[in-house]
Amino acid sequence: MSCIGVVDTTFARVDMGSVAVEELKNLLPHAVVKRITVPGIKNTVWGALRLIKDGCDAVIVLGWVGPTQVDKYSYLATSIGLIQLQIATGALVLDVTVHEEEGGGDEKKLKEIAIDRARKHAWNLAQLLTEGLEKYAGKGLRQGYPHAGEIL
Amino acid sequence: MSCIGVVDTTFARVDMGSVAVEELKNLLPHAVVKRITVPGIKNTVWGALRLIKDGCDAVIVLGWVGPTQVDKYSYLATSIGLIQLQIATGALVLDVTVHEEEGGGDEKKLKEIAIDRARKHAWNLAQLLTEGLEKYAGKGLRQGYPHAGEIL
Amino acid sequence: MSCIGVVDTTFARVDMGSVAVEELKNLLPHAVVKRITVPGIKNTVWGALRLIKDGCDAVIVLGWVGPTQVDKYSYLATSIGLIQLQIATGALVLDVTVHEEEGGGDEKKLKEIAIDRARKHAWNLAQLLTEGLEKYAGKGLRQGYPHAGEIL
Amino acid sequence: MSCIGVVDTTFARVDMGSVAVEELKNLLPHAVVKRITVPGIKNTVWGALRLIKDGCDAVIVLGWVGPTQVDKYSYLATSIGLIQLQIATGALVLDVTVHEEEGGGDEKKLKEIAIDRARKHAWNLAQLLTEGLEKYAGKGLRQGYPHAGEIL
Amino acid sequence: MSCIGVVDTTFARVDMGSVAVEELKNLLPHAVVKRITVPGIKNTVWGALRLIKDGCDAVIVLGWVGPTQVDKYSYLATSIGLIQLQIATGALVLDVTVHEEEGGGDEKKLKEIAIDRARKHAWNLAQLLTEGLEKYAGKGLRQGYPHAGEIL
Repeated sequence: MSCIGVVDTTFARVDMGSVAVEELKNLLPHAVVKRITVPGIKNTVWGALRLIKDGCDAVIVLGWVGPTQVDKYSYLATSIGLIQLQIATGALVLDVTVHEEEGGGDEKKLKEIAIDRARKHAWNLAQLLTEGLEKYAGKGLRQGYPHAGEIL
Repeated sequence: MSCIGVVDTTFARVDMGSVAVEELKNLLPHAVVKRITVPGIKNTVWGALRLIKDGCDAVIVLGWVGPTQVDKYSYLATSIGLIQLQIATGALVLDVTVHEEEGGGDEKKLKEIAIDRARKHAWNLAQLLTEGLEKYAGKGLRQGYPHAGEIL
Repeated sequence: MSCIGVVDTTFARVDMGSVAVEELKNLLPHAVVKRITVPGIKNTVWGALRLIKDGCDAVIVLGWVGPTQVDKYSYLATSIGLIQLQIATGALVLDVTVHEEEGGGDEKKLKEIAIDRARKHAWNLAQLLTEGLEKYAGKGLRQGYPHAGEIL
Repeated sequence: MSCIGVVDTTFARVDMGSVAVEELKNLLPHAVVKRITVPGIKNTVWGALRLIKDGCDAVIVLGWVGPTQVDKYSYLATSIGLIQLQIATGALVLDVTVHEEEGGGDEKKLKEIAIDRARKHAWNLAQLLTEGLEKYAGKGLRQGYPHAGEIL
Repeated sequence: MSCIGVVDTTFARVDMGSVAVEELKNLLPHAVVKRITVPGIKNTVWGALRLIKDGCDAVIVLGWVGPTQVDKYSYLATSIGLIQLQIATGALVLDVTVHEEEGGGDEKKLKEIAIDRARKHAWNLAQLLTEGLEKYAGKGLRQGYPHAGEIL
């Protein structure tokens, strides 16, 4: 198994990168995990590209997005870029973002969302690389919030 | 005939993937149908790419989109990516999405929309690969809703 | 002269494809006109790509766009894709769209807009392939509406 | 020196293409100036591509954008496309647009904006190809409006 | 070490390019710093591409964005383009923008934001090329504003 990359930012207010690294090491004990930290969300594409060039064929990107409309355009540009990167390289890039307004002004809640989301998406990455996610299809899984569940 | 791919998500609250697989097998009994499930809509491009690399030259993607503005930007990024994937590979990728607000708060209705849309787009895919859709041009066909019909 | 492609949709409520085919045959009697119908606007990029691979170096795409914000994002993704397709292939792709709200609720008017627009853009395509449009530069030409005219 | 391209549209209500051609000939008397007119803004990418293939390594694109939200999405798609074209070809493409609402309903003012903007961006193009713009860095230059100036 | 590029604009109202050049020379005294000034934000992709072709493998882009919705679409198109450029070339492009509304009408404050942001992102660039930013991961660093800090 080649390496798994973790990209995070100095803009984030929670160290999601360390959460993801720890979780990936638990779930995939034989994998090599490489990490790079970049300033903000728009730089994560370059960070992921560097890790892919460094031998990683799966990368988890942990972005933190401000609350303004300009921040949302940055989110959109980054999302487009991370998708293009996958088309260009074939690598899997799991794109995880926390949006500052999600906390509703409650920093503690925001931190919990960030940690839960990083951890659950690390699990998603591990599943995609091993057993797959087919048995959870249509189950309404959520990260950072309780699962919505399947409509019965 | 090479394989047909089905990509769906664990974020979805209805198992549209199984609906599409069943319908495709009915309509194209000689086709090989391969399926992959990914976490959310933005990961469907990687899923479709993997199935294309696996030999599929037509893929149906079943996305589920949340109701917020951030969700709509994710929809936009994914739509751009799935189109780029077609330009890059030449494969046909039918991009099917259900938007959570379509149910108007009624989960049963939302499920009906999701199933109808998955089934009708599976039919669209089968038609494109066999007889074509030329005789339905301008007929105001809809998926998930009643047909709007041609303006006479 | 190689072939000219026409792409239209089953989502459209007016058969703009037939209008364009007829007009192109009148204007360019020696051209081969090929047509493909796809489900909706986001599938037109694949349709145009297929016709380009089939030998067409000019394609007219006739899209029909719903009135919601999600429809407009689909319009945006498609517009970006059709432009990318031109960069990737060098082919001319004339991107024609009718937006359902243009009729102001009057279906007859909407149909007139659709037919006028398809016909005038078929003329634009023929001009681009023959004499060019330089003598109409800055003249405020419109399709589907009366010409706005040059500001004098 | 290879050729310089000018792309304009029949949608525009002012003949900005002729203004740019004249200005470029004054500023760069030894350059070959080639012009192509296309229907609307979304077709300018193809127009610029054709001129680049025809030997131009710098192109000025003169777009005219309507006032509606759909027009602005067309602006966005075109802007993305013209940037992609530069990445794909290495050519310089100066992207100049006039937005119909800029006149505030006053057609004479709108025409003045269009002419001033076309002329000043032709100057920008000439500067980029000769002495460069470094001495104007941060000077708050504007086209179509009075210069905003440097904040002192 | 190959060269580091600086791209700025004549549209900007503060000479951020000179601030970045000075800071980069202080932080990376052995680096060659090359600068190019272009008219506006949408031209920065071409500017960065030229410096990359000229041998730079890291570029800082200093954009200035107007307050209107059209300006924000230009911001979005540029952001997408600068990300694509990194995918296409592998070079690091740090994308720094000041938005005119950030000053809240106070030009002096706007200038301070611009200078602080240019300086801090020059530091980010230098860190990425030397020791890395991993020890600042999740620390809530900001440029142009006080650091938001980590949520404890």
